Amino acid sequence: MSEQLRVGMVGYAFMGAAHSQAWRTVNHAFDLPLSARMTAVAGRSSGAVAAAAAKLGWAEHTTDWRSLIDRDDIDLIDICTPGDTHREIALAALAAGKHVLCEKPLANTVAEAQEMAAAAANARGVFAMCGFNYRRVPAVALMRELVTAGRIGKLHHVRATYLQDWIVDPEFPLVWRLQKDVAGSGALGDIGAHIVDLTQFVTGQSIAAVSALTETFVKSRPLPSASAGLSASGSSSYGEVTVDDAALFLARLDGGAVATYEATRFATGRKNALRVELNGSLGSLVFDFERMNELSFYDGALPPEEQGFSTILVTEPNHPYMSAWWPAGHGIGYEHTFTHEVRDLIEAIATGTQPTPSFADALQVQLVLDAVSRSAESSQWCEVKPALEPV
Amino acid sequence: MSEQLRVGMVGYAFMGAAHSQAWRTVNHAFDLPLSARMTAVAGRSSGAVAAAAAKLGWAEHTTDWRSLIDRDDIDLIDICTPGDTHREIALAALAAGKHVLCEKPLANTVAEAQEMAAAAANARGVFAMCGFNYRRVPAVALMRELVTAGRIGKLHHVRATYLQDWIVDPEFPLVWRLQKDVAGSGALGDIGAHIVDLTQFVTGQSIAAVSALTETFVKSRPLPSASAGLSASGSSSYGEVTVDDAALFLARLDGGAVATYEATRFATGRKNALRVELNGSLGSLVFDFERMNELSFYDGALPPEEQGFSTILVTEPNHPYMSAWWPAGHGIGYEHTFTHEVRDLIEAIATGTQPTPSFADALQVQLVLDAVSRSAESSQWCEVKPALEPV
Amino acid sequence: MSEQLRVGMVGYAFMGAAHSQAWRTVNHAFDLPLSARMTAVAGRSSGAVAAAAAKLGWAEHTTDWRSLIDRDDIDLIDICTPGDTHREIALAALAAGKHVLCEKPLANTVAEAQEMAAAAANARGVFAMCGFNYRRVPAVALMRELVTAGRIGKLHHVRATYLQDWIVDPEFPLVWRLQKDVAGSGALGDIGAHIVDLTQFVTGQSIAAVSALTETFVKSRPLPSASAGLSASGSSSYGEVTVDDAALFLARLDGGAVATYEATRFATGRKNALRVELNGSLGSLVFDFERMNELSFYDGALPPEEQGFSTILVTEPNHPYMSAWWPAGHGIGYEHTFTHEVRDLIEAIATGTQPTPSFADALQVQLVLDAVSRSAESSQWCEVKPALEPV
Amino acid sequence: MSEQLRVGMVGYAFMGAAHSQAWRTVNHAFDLPLSARMTAVAGRSSGAVAAAAAKLGWAEHTTDWRSLIDRDDIDLIDICTPGDTHREIALAALAAGKHVLCEKPLANTVAEAQEMAAAAANARGVFAMCGFNYRRVPAVALMRELVTAGRIGKLHHVRATYLQDWIVDPEFPLVWRLQKDVAGSGALGDIGAHIVDLTQFVTGQSIAAVSALTETFVKSRPLPSASAGLSASGSSSYGEVTVDDAALFLARLDGGAVATYEATRFATGRKNALRVELNGSLGSLVFDFERMNELSFYDGALPPEEQGFSTILVTEPNHPYMSAWWPAGHGIGYEHTFTHEVRDLIEAIATGTQPTPSFADALQVQLVLDAVSRSAESSQWCEVKPALEPV
Repeated sequence: MSEQLRVGMVGYAFMGAAHSQAWRTVNHAFDLPLSARMTAVAGRSSGAVAAAAAKLGWAEHTTDWRSLIDRDDIDLIDICTPGDTHREIALAALAAGKHVLCEKPLANTVAEAQEMAAAAANARGVFAMCGFNYRRVPAVALMRELVTAGRIGKLHHVRATYLQDWIVDPEFPLVWRLQKDVAGSGALGDIGAHIVDLTQFVTGQSIAAVSALTETFVKSRPLPSASAGLSASGSSSYGEVTVDDAALFLARLDGGAVATYEATRFATGRKNALRVELNGSLGSLVFDFERMNELSFYDGALPPEEQGFSTILVTEPNHPYMSAWWPAGHGIGYEHTFTHEVRDLIEAIATGTQPTPSFADALQVQLVLDAVSRSAESSQWCEVKPALEPV
Repeated sequence: MSEQLRVGMVGYAFMGAAHSQAWRTVNHAFDLPLSARMTAVAGRSSGAVAAAAAKLGWAEHTTDWRSLIDRDDIDLIDICTPGDTHREIALAALAAGKHVLCEKPLANTVAEAQEMAAAAANARGVFAMCGFNYRRVPAVALMRELVTAGRIGKLHHVRATYLQDWIVDPEFPLVWRLQKDVAGSGALGDIGAHIVDLTQFVTGQSIAAVSALTETFVKSRPLPSASAGLSASGSSSYGEVTVDDAALFLARLDGGAVATYEATRFATGRKNALRVELNGSLGSLVFDFERMNELSFYDGALPPEEQGFSTILVTEPNHPYMSAWWPAGHGIGYEHTFTHEVRDLIEAIATGTQPTPSFADALQVQLVLDAVSRSAESSQWCEVKPALEPV
Repeated sequence: MSEQLRVGMVGYAFMGAAHSQAWRTVNHAFDLPLSARMTAVAGRSSGAVAAAAAKLGWAEHTTDWRSLIDRDDIDLIDICTPGDTHREIALAALAAGKHVLCEKPLANTVAEAQEMAAAAANARGVFAMCGFNYRRVPAVALMRELVTAGRIGKLHHVRATYLQDWIVDPEFPLVWRLQKDVAGSGALGDIGAHIVDLTQFVTGQSIAAVSALTETFVKSRPLPSASAGLSASGSSSYGEVTVDDAALFLARLDGGAVATYEATRFATGRKNALRVELNGSLGSLVFDFERMNELSFYDGALPPEEQGFSTILVTEPNHPYMSAWWPAGHGIGYEHTFTHEVRDLIEAIATGTQPTPSFADALQVQLVLDAVSRSAESSQWCEVKPALEPV
Repeated sequence: MSEQLRVGMVGYAFMGAAHSQAWRTVNHAFDLPLSARMTAVAGRSSGAVAAAAAKLGWAEHTTDWRSLIDRDDIDLIDICTPGDTHREIALAALAAGKHVLCEKPLANTVAEAQEMAAAAANARGVFAMCGFNYRRVPAVALMRELVTAGRIGKLHHVRATYLQDWIVDPEFPLVWRLQKDVAGSGALGDIGAHIVDLTQFVTGQSIAAVSALTETFVKSRPLPSASAGLSASGSSSYGEVTVDDAALFLARLDGGAVATYEATRFATGRKNALRVELNGSLGSLVFDFERMNELSFYDGALPPEEQGFSTILVTEPNHPYMSAWWPAGHGIGYEHTFTHEVRDLIEAIATGTQPTPSFADALQVQLVLDAVSRSAESSQWCEVKPALEPV
């Protein structure tokens, strides 16, 4: 068989489960020069990580993530933990000569992201990639191809939303994603980061300046223990929500397009509505993750009486990534975006090519998020700062 | 101003109201060689017809439809009554040298339709037209244009339904449309006739043979007076439903296509779902009246990775009939199909051209309905009989 | 018959045609205490206004709009001219004791709108109404009813766009709507005004502050004569576009909701995409004018496993305005919004009630547009100024 | 870890790949009493089966399927071969005391299916299941739950299509699926079988009688070698298509509903459009596999003005099978239906319960297909014959 890429994963919750499914599947779906091996998983709780290893298919487990980095038989560290730990793990892994796949957002602050991007740029012989998995939806990849081929002409408008509703209930507990010290931000960094990355990816333009507002509709919530019914007193059982429930911003892109962005966890009924519409001088494109196997294309070059938004079922063998899967019309799911991500990562490592998005790309997203935060705080338009040059 | 086309209408209920709106509007929307004048309306009840004339805009009213035919100042008789009266009125009008617009289905029996088609064929200087208004939906007209231009290639499949739900409730009363002696048939003639006509119109093929079933789910219903609460005894207040609630049939078309048809008044939630899908060797077309301003087109000649069902918003000035109306994206409604119908009728009369669908066309639809009825009764495939040649 | 409401209309282009269809139709569709009479139409060009009168059904015509105001046999002045003329005509009409229906936006400046609102407030025995016709889409009226009934709970998000594409082509000529001195503004006042009014109407909340950007993608265009091919030289045939092609803004509403708004004429493929989504604590509502007979409702009170966005076909007799029209599933069109508008206006006049939206309501919209303009110019958040109290 | 279920699979093409993904994944997604082990795969070609084993994750491979049955370390035989081989393999496996999972259609003839069902009924200690995977789409399972709970009331209509387009091109080669001796039938058995099973499953009613037509639009096709360009002469390179391209039928169900069914490979643009609509006295349900994460429900018990077809995103933890997967709104794909299938199979085996659909259930589908074939041949309505009692 082919040479191995031996993976150590840190974290085993939602993202860990999704990444595990990808590592388990990728060599069964794609013909690749390296074969992924799920060597070990690290987590804080001994019992939980053992159970996760068994369930998710990791050969070994540990409560010490540093031990993964110390091992000679691990080639890549896959970081699936909350944002406040990304920097430390990634720097250690790169320093130890491991490839790194790090979940998004890259870090909780620009300073951390800057440091990580510098470390990745200076690493020799290993690569770092950030996990903006939605780039690997076949319909999104097709969207980028059509833009790049000039099919929508000069871009005028971007309209991007990422709408969820899982915390509309004010009694939903104060989980870590609602705590700034762990999560960095709320909807902004969790899902807003995705639409920032995705729109920049498909348009080839970068966000230059933003005017933003953020809102926290429910300002205190039951502490997780309280919501589990274990709290004795009422007054002590609530804690302050320290992140945004919603972040909205206008943007100007460096290629001349104007844009609206909205990320929220309060859009009742919208479960995972990552939607992007692009309007150009020659056509338009629309993607909605809730119908992830479809791409809508308006081709202004067709005869006028035949123009209309089409629904391309992106399941043909000639569509990006799809030759690995099922016959036309037999759609794929959310998890496949991760399988495609590690497929591209394996190809890049095997060919000595920088995988994308790089940490530098992810840093640029972080700089946009930073501009959004500054704008929301100051009620001013804020320019996206340039990244520092890595030393 | 232009010369007049003086109209006398018989019947003033649903169809009468729709036709009135068309006659009132047509010259304000289209530039036409003749100006419609709403001379008089006839109905059975003196008070009701007077009220209808006032409401709908007819200059005069009468309880004697024959008096309309006797008048010299009426050029066209517009028949909006139930099917059991069509033959008598149409024959009298044609004999008196009046143009005729007759609502569908043309008649309750083939024999009547045959007689009417013969009378129309033999009429000199006047024309008869049957009111299959859905032909005049702009999206349907565009559908026909695309088929005729060869854009979907050789036709393989027709899939046609006309779904309504207004009598699902078993307590809905036994109105005239549920009585065979007045209505001729149930869903079959009322709405099935529309999809027979429409599919033959858009495909250019005729139905050659059918295998059918009909069903009456609710076999007795409250008499109208009973449902209004006026009945004294329970047992006498119900009457037998003598028509079909639903009619389903398979068909072979004379050009080689195969088809399914379904007309029902028992499709809960489907209000007026006249839907037609055509699949050809090069493409497909889909129309749904509940979204009447749209046509869906799958163009198999596009690059493979860009193929998809489009939603053409049929509201551009270059779409059929639409230059008369509003800017693109500002849709029209049900009543406009009648306005287009009388527009085409006026044009035909003014230019001495046979309007379509002619009574002969409508007779052919009647022959299909007859084959469906015979097939449902015999549980055999039945061929559509040829029309007799008019003497 | 009933007493008359005698109408004089100024202007006969797009809006004039739509209003004419409404005046012609309203008494045939609704039972009303007053009967509309289309007494006379005024326009600048003698030949054109004569032709328009004939085509649209006005009994008389004139090139002097003031003559309409001087006539005793006219009760209401219907203003369908560009925005720079609204103030003068409306003030004259009110001063002469005429009711006024004025197209939106109410005026080109806040000062004008303020003056008009004051005049309307001080008028005795006559009423003024502004023509935000989209309020009268049945689905929009239903949306408001559901919000008012508390069905979506506390409002968190408004997402409003009005997307068109008719000037994407840079060779589209410099028509009056692209000239600030005539039109006041571009997409902002023409279509942005509609979504400002509509969202305030359905939510019952007012926009309190905005952060905006506007963009003119194509800065010079062929002069109308040039585009008609009559220009001799190249350099003189282009003129400057002095209005916005697109206006985007964030907003905070006075009830605590946050919002994005976007009005553009550069959204290729979007013909008349007036779309509004509301997310509340208990549910969501979505309307899209391109499917104007539908309303989408997500009811968070349903059993969790049955929740989903529904497509309510707003064509039932129990839906707003619809009992006047056709059976369920037989949709209506753009023009019906105007028929409903004049229906409500006639009812209000007959009952001595202020019709809505009043000039005061329309002034408030103007104040929002003003805040948007100031914000776009200053790149600052701007509060919506309060209206001056009428003296 | 848990006890093992050791699997031997026969066949490794499309179905083999899908089953392999299911076996590989099932214990990572679900907590189950047995752990699947992919012991060996059998295929005809030595090289190809070796490659398939490596790619798909089978520990061993063989060219002799009987050797799988002879092994003591295999508990279950998974049959993924064409229909002409099902009987022999299944009978041998059952006789050897192996559980059997057999792809659909169960067999190419009723006689074979009858024999298989009898063998399964008589097997002791082992179970046989037929792989109608679409039953395991969460939206389909939810559909069944809603029907069973009475939410659509008494069933009136079934409208089922399975539309594909992969052989519209007349130059598509004569693959085994187009040869009657291997495949048994064409669209009828391949995809028509799915909608027969699925509609019977969700409605709880059985098809009692049918009237059918079948059509072969393209009667001869290039032999596979010819289409690969290896043929020397023109005349010898075409072969006869011996199966149906399309099968259409009307049906009466034993609970009183009426139905239309259509299976075709000639519906241009329809890639895998398995669509089922049910209309009952209280509501309706619609499923379309091309949007497999959605179910549409019309609930006639809602307030009349709020009724509409909803789009339930069937991705909530409380939806069937979905607690094993991702958060709400993160959809799954085609392959998950097989993972759910083997999950249910493992549960049934572990608990000693007959898995569904049993061979008896699959025989009943075969009897329906047989009635369809007889009807198409005779142009008569045909009743579905009862199964013979197993001896």
